[in-house]
Amino acid sequence: MTIVKYNTLKLISIINILRNMRKKLVMIPGPTNVPERVMLAMVKPIINHRSPAFTQLYKGIIEKCQKVFLTKSDIIVFTASGSGGVEAAVTNIVRPGDKVLVTVFGEFGQRAAEQVEAAGGKAIVADAPLGDAPRMDKIRALAEANKDIKAVFVVYNETSTGVTFRWLKELGKLASDLGAFYIVDAISILGGDELPVDELGVDICIAGSQKCLAAPPGVVIVSVSNKVKKYLESNPPPPRHYFNMPRYFKFAERGETPFTPALPLFYALDEALTMLLEEGLDNRIRRHKICSEAFYRSLSAINLKPTAKEDVRSNVVLAFNYPTGIEDAKFRKLLDDKFDVLVAGGFGEFRGKVFRIGCMGEVNTPHVLTTVTAVSAALNQLGYQNSTAAALDEALKVLSQLN
Amino acid sequence: MTIVKYNTLKLISIINILRNMRKKLVMIPGPTNVPERVMLAMVKPIINHRSPAFTQLYKGIIEKCQKVFLTKSDIIVFTASGSGGVEAAVTNIVRPGDKVLVTVFGEFGQRAAEQVEAAGGKAIVADAPLGDAPRMDKIRALAEANKDIKAVFVVYNETSTGVTFRWLKELGKLASDLGAFYIVDAISILGGDELPVDELGVDICIAGSQKCLAAPPGVVIVSVSNKVKKYLESNPPPPRHYFNMPRYFKFAERGETPFTPALPLFYALDEALTMLLEEGLDNRIRRHKICSEAFYRSLSAINLKPTAKEDVRSNVVLAFNYPTGIEDAKFRKLLDDKFDVLVAGGFGEFRGKVFRIGCMGEVNTPHVLTTVTAVSAALNQLGYQNSTAAALDEALKVLSQLN
Repeated sequence: MTIVKYNTLKLISIINILRNMRKKLVMIPGPTNVPERVMLAMVKPIINHRSPAFTQLYKGIIEKCQKVFLTKSDIIVFTASGSGGVEAAVTNIVRPGDKVLVTVFGEFGQRAAEQVEAAGGKAIVADAPLGDAPRMDKIRALAEANKDIKAVFVVYNETSTGVTFRWLKELGKLASDLGAFYIVDAISILGGDELPVDELGVDICIAGSQKCLAAPPGVVIVSVSNKVKKYLESNPPPPRHYFNMPRYFKFAERGETPFTPALPLFYALDEALTMLLEEGLDNRIRRHKICSEAFYRSLSAINLKPTAKEDVRSNVVLAFNYPTGIEDAKFRKLLDDKFDVLVAGGFGEFRGKVFRIGCMGEVNTPHVLTTVTAVSAALNQLGYQNSTAAALDEALKVLSQLN
Repeated sequence: MTIVKYNTLKLISIINILRNMRKKLVMIPGPTNVPERVMLAMVKPIINHRSPAFTQLYKGIIEKCQKVFLTKSDIIVFTASGSGGVEAAVTNIVRPGDKVLVTVFGEFGQRAAEQVEAAGGKAIVADAPLGDAPRMDKIRALAEANKDIKAVFVVYNETSTGVTFRWLKELGKLASDLGAFYIVDAISILGGDELPVDELGVDICIAGSQKCLAAPPGVVIVSVSNKVKKYLESNPPPPRHYFNMPRYFKFAERGETPFTPALPLFYALDEALTMLLEEGLDNRIRRHKICSEAFYRSLSAINLKPTAKEDVRSNVVLAFNYPTGIEDAKFRKLLDDKFDVLVAGGFGEFRGKVFRIGCMGEVNTPHVLTTVTAVSAALNQLGYQNSTAAALDEALKVLSQLN
């Protein structure tokens, strides 16, 4: 009754399941490839989520997250997608009539602005053409015109366009000068680029599990500063339950979540964070930078144009414009069927015009070389003549910087 | 590059992980024991959630859910706990000023009433003492006094007290007579007791993954009638995103979810539903009834008193009062440490006074016998003299009805 031993027949069935899985190289901007160690953590035994065993798991996750976010703040883990984390941030902070300065330079900024309005707030939108990010002068001008801004919400990395907002420090300073809460949507980038939460004065930072942290999708991690906690104590949010932060704080005191957590995803997140800390946060960020640089150089060598302006190009989501005549669906199906490589299409007005590569999590030399080879070869097959050798040559030059 | 083969070293590491897992018998009211087939489905490869591969998985889940809910209605799968499903039901239906008749006979009914008020509605509460459920005469009187009721919300099985509301048919008739939406919180019971959604005229039915369906926690399944869909078309819910049903309907048309789904949990749910349909819904319900009857008879034989009144006793969550002198924490720790059996404590005013057994999902003869033995032996050790043999004898008599 004590320890369940797996018998030989069961083990053989497990082995057969794993042997026969056709695995794709998942180079979409999340979910991304998940290391086997992390996948296997999901099959750990079911435990009571109201027990010391869960509290131990939970506290380990929080401590590791604090090391990855570089914060001493509280951390909340919601069983939800990244969008749930954004909804949590907005609905806990925004009250009817509140002004929130929101950067909008793609789909996810647009959604954040919608959420602000849905909460009864007024979104002061700092926008930019797709492929670019709003610059600080524009943002400062908006702040000048709206002194009573309660919060500044920035999308650090806009997954829909492959653009990273590069002025987090300056924007944090502005938020501080305004006495506003500073909310950073880092869903697709945390762990893949710099984001020292406490140093930048970030009040709420949102990260997805299935991006640079290389865990499966289904949980979203949110850091919450003491300033926000204090605010919520005297200004409780609307009494909806699921994304109600004070409810999470209360249960966190005993190392639990208020609602039944997605236990297997908590096990996986814990393992993924352990792997990240084994590698070292700085090393992981450096690896993301080198791999993305290898992608940009190699695909530029075959004359593909990045969608993003050069100074705001993302190291974690890379968008490229299709050459004339290449059909999105045909190209991605060929990559998938023949090369077992998954990349993503474009969003909104970029649909059919760009493809996007997730350069996230486990991303490494074989991932980059396999993807570059597949992209180049598929384009050749579809009539866009290019030299795979030239592309690989550039990639290898950059990748030689990796240990 | 095509099929990734697991090499011997990796397989040995997997085997070692599984061999060394100390598994408990999880007899809490969710999460419950998950069959290995279902656990292992989680390690299937990561795929793009915007691809035909995901659409195939998604459509399979929806079709299977329709067979389990006995409905032709739309089904939504949210990445969230059961409480997220309740929030979805309430926030999509209730508008400021709307009256909702809510059954409150424990923690989860109480929360539903809070949610109605949080959405600006007015909860007309049909309550009952803990251990009982409100009776139809009381509910009818409330309905008489409030003709303009927009929705009737019933907790089919109150997990906090082990009480099942036994008049779903009569209540459905009343809701229909009132022209009200009929919402059934079946989170902890669907798959373990009768609930023919279409036959009963249920407009919204909410089921958890981690209860009688025997999948891991983290997704909640919600059926939505055409009547509700039509209502939402002309009366869109508040534009929050995460639990916004119209958003899910839109994406469901192409076999996708609006937000990144918890893919491993979708794989697991699909496998769990397949197992349920292999067994047959009727057989599964019969098994739950026989196992719960075995629990009630055997523990009554050693003079433990069920918390619930006899005609509302649940077949899936069984609460028993502690005999005088037995300490909750001590008892459950002993069960856990020495017998590797997990049961749950009480909620609210029942905390410390009752323990609860989840009779859910995989529950079978060895589960019942192991649990009864452990409960009886632990009570003996703590000074409550009783005959384990007498308890087992009663259990075996009932369990002999199982194939």
